[in-house]
Amino acid sequence: MSSIKPLPNFLAQRYHGWKATTYDENKAWYRLLASEGQRPRAMVISCCDSRVHVTSIFGAEQGEFFIHRNIANLVPPFEPDGDHHGTSAAVEYAVTVLKVAHVVVLGHSLCGGVNGCLKMCSGEAPELEKSSSFVGRWMDILRPGYERIADVPEEEKARALEYQAVLVSLENLLTFPFVKERADAGLLSLHGLWTDISEGTLHSYHPDDGEFHPV
Amino acid sequence: MSSIKPLPNFLAQRYHGWKATTYDENKAWYRLLASEGQRPRAMVISCCDSRVHVTSIFGAEQGEFFIHRNIANLVPPFEPDGDHHGTSAAVEYAVTVLKVAHVVVLGHSLCGGVNGCLKMCSGEAPELEKSSSFVGRWMDILRPGYERIADVPEEEKARALEYQAVLVSLENLLTFPFVKERADAGLLSLHGLWTDISEGTLHSYHPDDGEFHPV
Amino acid sequence: MSSIKPLPNFLAQRYHGWKATTYDENKAWYRLLASEGQRPRAMVISCCDSRVHVTSIFGAEQGEFFIHRNIANLVPPFEPDGDHHGTSAAVEYAVTVLKVAHVVVLGHSLCGGVNGCLKMCSGEAPELEKSSSFVGRWMDILRPGYERIADVPEEEKARALEYQAVLVSLENLLTFPFVKERADAGLLSLHGLWTDISEGTLHSYHPDDGEFHPV
Amino acid sequence: MSSIKPLPNFLAQRYHGWKATTYDENKAWYRLLASEGQRPRAMVISCCDSRVHVTSIFGAEQGEFFIHRNIANLVPPFEPDGDHHGTSAAVEYAVTVLKVAHVVVLGHSLCGGVNGCLKMCSGEAPELEKSSSFVGRWMDILRPGYERIADVPEEEKARALEYQAVLVSLENLLTFPFVKERADAGLLSLHGLWTDISEGTLHSYHPDDGEFHPV
Repeated sequence: MSSIKPLPNFLAQRYHGWKATTYDENKAWYRLLASEGQRPRAMVISCCDSRVHVTSIFGAEQGEFFIHRNIANLVPPFEPDGDHHGTSAAVEYAVTVLKVAHVVVLGHSLCGGVNGCLKMCSGEAPELEKSSSFVGRWMDILRPGYERIADVPEEEKARALEYQAVLVSLENLLTFPFVKERADAGLLSLHGLWTDISEGTLHSYHPDDGEFHPV
Repeated sequence: MSSIKPLPNFLAQRYHGWKATTYDENKAWYRLLASEGQRPRAMVISCCDSRVHVTSIFGAEQGEFFIHRNIANLVPPFEPDGDHHGTSAAVEYAVTVLKVAHVVVLGHSLCGGVNGCLKMCSGEAPELEKSSSFVGRWMDILRPGYERIADVPEEEKARALEYQAVLVSLENLLTFPFVKERADAGLLSLHGLWTDISEGTLHSYHPDDGEFHPV
Repeated sequence: MSSIKPLPNFLAQRYHGWKATTYDENKAWYRLLASEGQRPRAMVISCCDSRVHVTSIFGAEQGEFFIHRNIANLVPPFEPDGDHHGTSAAVEYAVTVLKVAHVVVLGHSLCGGVNGCLKMCSGEAPELEKSSSFVGRWMDILRPGYERIADVPEEEKARALEYQAVLVSLENLLTFPFVKERADAGLLSLHGLWTDISEGTLHSYHPDDGEFHPV
Repeated sequence: MSSIKPLPNFLAQRYHGWKATTYDENKAWYRLLASEGQRPRAMVISCCDSRVHVTSIFGAEQGEFFIHRNIANLVPPFEPDGDHHGTSAAVEYAVTVLKVAHVVVLGHSLCGGVNGCLKMCSGEAPELEKSSSFVGRWMDILRPGYERIADVPEEEKARALEYQAVLVSLENLLTFPFVKERADAGLLSLHGLWTDISEGTLHSYHPDDGEFHPV
């Protein structure tokens, strides 16, 4: 395993900067979080994309948000088949163990995963259809969303499918019995967001009219 | 879906604060990231835990790290079986599309997922053994690590298994042909880290002696 | 005094967010409040509890409420003995200098101070009886309230004593000559409230039947 | 007690607005705070002044800050004499029961209490010297601060004494054994702030040069 190496210096240097500043000024809080355990108010499901850091947008501090990040901020449907389901495990832990009050799904513009899904579903990316394509099989979760945007003009399809990535995930979340139960009891609310990387705008899904509106 | 609601005001307020400050002073960079695409230097795989934000520890700015977060920072082995594999999809995208130069696996102290695995493997948490337990089935990935720490004294097992969560993931990463290939070509290096939430220390895995050393 | 440190960054960031948004859009009003002085309509006495912010419940804007917060929203009786009396000083300033029209005492459910008093008075918390216990000595103010709920069933005592924390404070307020005088002249009215943290309900004391009724 | 009345309608109306909006969208969080108890990160000691709401400046949400407000944000020295000490009780509860990581003392411009102290100490307000003046006796806590600003030019004395109200309080906080102990153990840090009501600026005390600097 010669490709496994100690931490590169550029990261070590940054770490030391953090240790001497942020850690030092928050030491008491971090120790409290360690001794008393975490109690985040919300779970956020967002994309791995390096341009969308929920910790930045919401000024998230240590202890505030339980964050799961995957390609295209997707939640698969409830499938208790005994296989590894990383997203479902994260949702289960957040909702049943940590008892978060909110689950926020945060989509974004220019999403590479959503764009791949768009190409795959429209027949332009046969390599993503292969059984061996992890990205393709992951984006299968979004296929129901693609079907719903059949009537959307071509030039608006990317945005529409990014919205669907949020909506399909919210719907799938409600297929989990433990999510549904706490939501019905008024102990959990779900929220759909989409952010434009370039303009820094944030849109929130309003279920009453089924649209995303600027926050 | 009455449990789906618009963004709560406390998050809207924080967002507006970010928009008026951080976004405003970095607008040119964010627009460039949007128009030119992301080009992160590293992928980081870390835990969902609200107390471990890699964006904080490394002062990560927009565009720098492609971040996947799941319970206990685990990577499953290469299993191209056509099912949804969120972690494998993220690794595939980072390595083959974005061509990141580093993959960093960041473990941490007091990990709830690792602790659950410890209890499950030692027979103290039968509920996690159920087929329907997403957390249990996800933590199955770490079972080989549990077997390796059989001789570790009881009071050191938690830390030892947290280290294993990093090591098993690094090993599993190398079972992915596209990871192996780029690593062998010297185009990708892998790094194992572990951070202590309370003390803010960071330990890096050194393959030469097989130990984690403080950075 | 090495434990005294500059403002942590997480608070600085929130402040900058406020400055760029709320302050900016209310600048003219804040400047007027500075140049002309404050003229709050009411004084509110509420608990320090982080879950009860009167500014939130009543949407209090800058300039509207003069707010004193202490453990269990208590007002001690009139004792002009030359010692430091923070609560009495606040009441004196609000009533004689600012000439507020209302004094509102806001109690709440799950009050840690009231619960401590309950345990202390029933003999379960000897540590609170010590002369050196600031919380214990402060809660002494509520002892007369405990005596009045002697006949209340055990499981209703906490709520009953929370009500008493409001009522004893209202009664003590009227022992202050300057409060009595303005109240008798019809220039000041007193109000007793109690809010349920969990349900968000608000109950108002009605002197005609001596009960708290939902608002 | 005919001066005790039910809640005035203007406050009832505001409450109903909050209940239908903020409460409704945060119901799950408030219920969690009720069932699990509060765990604020910081205690804030600020003035009753209606123009300085820390909940606004820091966007404080339910559950985040344990807030004590009194005239001129003062903390008296440690005096375990068995009398009622509301401020000391609040500090004791925050530090020993809630184990907050930070105590922030927030002063402000145009402070009526500080101004009264200035007049009292310079002989211009004999009525505040009376044993029966609660405001006067409360402001006695700040007398040591007045002595230290003897050399400050007349026109800068108000600001200097507002700073002293913060510094004397920080010093007094460290006379409490339970504060000192946790501070020495690195589990608690203290912070001094001063805000300008008119300009919305915020200054933080830096112990290294003994000055307040803009945040």
